[in-house]
Amino acid sequence: MSILGEMIIGRACLRGSAGQAFGYNPATRADLEPAFGQASGDDVERACALAQQAFDPYRALPLERRARFLEAIAEQILAVGPQLIERAMQESGLPQARLEGERMRTVNQLRLFAKVVRDGYFIDATVDSALPDRAPPRPDLRLRKIGLGPVAVFGASNFPLAFSVAGGDTASSLAAGCPVVVKAHGAHPGTSELVGRAVQRAAIECDMPEGVFSMLFGDGRTVGQQLVGHPAIKAVGFTGSRQGGTALMRTAAARSEPIPVYAEMSSVNPMFLLPSALQAGGATLAQGFVDSLTLGVGQFCTNPGLVFALAGSDLDAFVSAAAEALAAKAAGTMLTAGIHEAYNSGIARFGALDGLQLAAQGGEQGQGCAARAALYVCDADAYLGNPALEDEVFGPAAVLVRFTDEEQLLRAAEALHGQLTATVHAGESDHALAARLLPVLERKAGRVLFNGFPTGVEVSHAMVHGGPFPATSDSRTTSVGASAIDRFLRPVCYQNIPASLLPQELSDDNPLGLARLLDGTLKVGGAA
Amino acid sequence: MSILGEMIIGRACLRGSAGQAFGYNPATRADLEPAFGQASGDDVERACALAQQAFDPYRALPLERRARFLEAIAEQILAVGPQLIERAMQESGLPQARLEGERMRTVNQLRLFAKVVRDGYFIDATVDSALPDRAPPRPDLRLRKIGLGPVAVFGASNFPLAFSVAGGDTASSLAAGCPVVVKAHGAHPGTSELVGRAVQRAAIECDMPEGVFSMLFGDGRTVGQQLVGHPAIKAVGFTGSRQGGTALMRTAAARSEPIPVYAEMSSVNPMFLLPSALQAGGATLAQGFVDSLTLGVGQFCTNPGLVFALAGSDLDAFVSAAAEALAAKAAGTMLTAGIHEAYNSGIARFGALDGLQLAAQGGEQGQGCAARAALYVCDADAYLGNPALEDEVFGPAAVLVRFTDEEQLLRAAEALHGQLTATVHAGESDHALAARLLPVLERKAGRVLFNGFPTGVEVSHAMVHGGPFPATSDSRTTSVGASAIDRFLRPVCYQNIPASLLPQELSDDNPLGLARLLDGTLKVGGAA
Repeated sequence: MSILGEMIIGRACLRGSAGQAFGYNPATRADLEPAFGQASGDDVERACALAQQAFDPYRALPLERRARFLEAIAEQILAVGPQLIERAMQESGLPQARLEGERMRTVNQLRLFAKVVRDGYFIDATVDSALPDRAPPRPDLRLRKIGLGPVAVFGASNFPLAFSVAGGDTASSLAAGCPVVVKAHGAHPGTSELVGRAVQRAAIECDMPEGVFSMLFGDGRTVGQQLVGHPAIKAVGFTGSRQGGTALMRTAAARSEPIPVYAEMSSVNPMFLLPSALQAGGATLAQGFVDSLTLGVGQFCTNPGLVFALAGSDLDAFVSAAAEALAAKAAGTMLTAGIHEAYNSGIARFGALDGLQLAAQGGEQGQGCAARAALYVCDADAYLGNPALEDEVFGPAAVLVRFTDEEQLLRAAEALHGQLTATVHAGESDHALAARLLPVLERKAGRVLFNGFPTGVEVSHAMVHGGPFPATSDSRTTSVGASAIDRFLRPVCYQNIPASLLPQELSDDNPLGLARLLDGTLKVGGAA
Repeated sequence: MSILGEMIIGRACLRGSAGQAFGYNPATRADLEPAFGQASGDDVERACALAQQAFDPYRALPLERRARFLEAIAEQILAVGPQLIERAMQESGLPQARLEGERMRTVNQLRLFAKVVRDGYFIDATVDSALPDRAPPRPDLRLRKIGLGPVAVFGASNFPLAFSVAGGDTASSLAAGCPVVVKAHGAHPGTSELVGRAVQRAAIECDMPEGVFSMLFGDGRTVGQQLVGHPAIKAVGFTGSRQGGTALMRTAAARSEPIPVYAEMSSVNPMFLLPSALQAGGATLAQGFVDSLTLGVGQFCTNPGLVFALAGSDLDAFVSAAAEALAAKAAGTMLTAGIHEAYNSGIARFGALDGLQLAAQGGEQGQGCAARAALYVCDADAYLGNPALEDEVFGPAAVLVRFTDEEQLLRAAEALHGQLTATVHAGESDHALAARLLPVLERKAGRVLFNGFPTGVEVSHAMVHGGPFPATSDSRTTSVGASAIDRFLRPVCYQNIPASLLPQELSDDNPLGLARLLDGTLKVGGAA
């Protein structure tokens, strides 16, 4: 399959006319052919208008067809074959095994949302029967959730498949009955075109309304802002920088009709090493930490960038072991030249800070956009005096803070910003302290984990990849896992609607066998 | 019980030191004793600090105690007795029967949320079992929802009990495990003090953590803005004007940590009279419409202020019958002098519009803040040329628009802003047109009803009192009914948490008998 530098607008593939841009190989620092035409204002308008037209017919389709469409996307992505992995490797510097794993994750995510659609729990079907003899009489009331409308999805640089054109935001929007307009990330345009064409083929194969999916190339400041400002767009899914996410939040809030923005932005994912865990497993813990810190060259949203522990010889041993493990890690190629530069400035900033010592470094920086991992150590006073230490430096760098006592550590936990994850390493005898930490951490983070590492985000029903600001723009949701569909739904109540006009989900005979809340009691399947 | 002009801050009752204000009797245009001291910045600070301290201990209490607290509030409100109704009548101009009904609604609402807490569906308890043999292994993942944190609740003028100090926002926040700081509405300070003291007594009786509830007097522009800007406050519930609601939205979005605002603001609640419904029941329909329009002097959020129908003799007959019914309605006292003035300017604005005819008026304006109902009629062109006709005039005024054909009517439906409700009156032979309207209306409104009137909002599980902007600030939610609790919750995922540290809702033996999503399948009760 050729990569032509074309965008997807409904059933058409076409070249954007507003300038062009190239893919870039961060390992060789060379541009990649072909040139990708960037979207004009008219292209944005056309994609949004088609999405708007597609909304009613798409959401009216039987759930089974929606589920089948998601599965067809998964099949079409697999059908692209090795070309997809090769192009993604060139554009991202990520290794083959990682990208093959990510493709499988993307495909499984689409299949999970097909199941979510078929199960229909997300509909929250609710029936309150009429009570004609009550004074005043109660009408017949039925609730279901429907899609918000067309969603603008922004591809992320760090997961060119799983958080991009057909990633979690797209899968959950389509599952919710919402058409999608993707702004592809400029870091992997060829990968995006291949996936965009796969989605388009699935839409045609499944006879979906035109406009259910479009994909545009362009800059966040122009095409991205136009998309978020377009009246047809009713919600936004974004994974990226805090600067980018907050810019979209401002645009969305300033519209004549404000819309929700789901931006997953930044997190340092604090890790708490409690005394008996440190004592029991210092060296193993250190290796696990360093593996997590350097996985994917530290370019995970859940990368552990901040470590809190009580000072002492067990911690010193941990730092020594971590330093040794880190030194054995070769420098890895980062996703883009911009990310590589930002990482190098970030660690230069750390290097200049008073009271922060460089405790360990990874293997020397190599060719291209390769980055050297780094671990810094400081005392509580230096940490508390430098609020910037809680700002994420995207990449394989972490700061370890030594506290003198439990109260100081708890106060620092309380002072944390919102995070995607918080990790506690604790042995049995740490449970009293862990029990005091837990209520704090669940206020701070979307996921709290014990005796593990935060990288590796399972795509399942109980996953929360979210958290209070500034980790995300909206702590009430998750961008990974089955509940991600809830972001794109709103409830509608139907009062005394004639049976022939009722949506199937709410009809008395419950032909879809949905779980329903019937007069206040949850019933799994069966008729009303 | 004396009304002392005091605020509630935790377990204290005290007089605000930042000036004073009086209640006002809109029927007599006289101030009411006593003076109410207004909150200073320190008072706001103290209430917020106590709420923050109360959050962890309050949400950690067993669900049963939370439910019992809500029931105790209901009992304490009833125990205030006739004094509450008398004071509310004086402050609101509303009649005794309406306020007694509203008190019962308030009490039932608290009891509904006690049931919601006990049922525990809102927790969305989810368990994904560990899969240690999978490659890579899946960790044990468990999700529950917890409260967002302290909530600022703004009392509304038009429901001095049901949407005020212990109204739906307060009940659903407390049910979610969130402490509440109420800014009482200046239109009913005495009613607010009586209810605030009732809540305080319930909190003491149930041994709740101090700070779970406070109530302040003050202006929206000062105390209200301070509250919404306070770092301890994590969400806002508001019912009132679009101007007030959007001001809070701006403040909340501009915080260093933006927070959600649930503002229920304005709606003209369009009503569609389809041909065979008009033909079959014109006069009855006209009477029902006029009753709904003038109920509570038109001061309901769901007041039907806009009527769409096809021109013809059946519609003419409807307008004549409505005119007759309207003339028989006496003028009613509005809630405040400000609302009364705004209503009179609103109908003066209508009166000056080209192409808008005054078709009928209610009984003549009487003493005090009494308002005369009004029905205006215009053609589609005049309506489409005056976008201001879709702006709510709060009170008993409506505009009826005559369309020439179905397509024109459908286009006007498509052009509507977000609404709380949309009503269709349709006979059997209107169902084809109704089926075309329905997908449009469910995109526009939180509740779609057939052959009824939108006033009268049932407090039940399937109710949605919400809708797209500008009806509310957040279409994903409802401010009435059991789902209102969802506004104040966020999901947290627990990964590999030791059993002894797991919250009860997620422990294997499911001691609370909660419905849980277990490995993707919904189980009602029983152990994992």
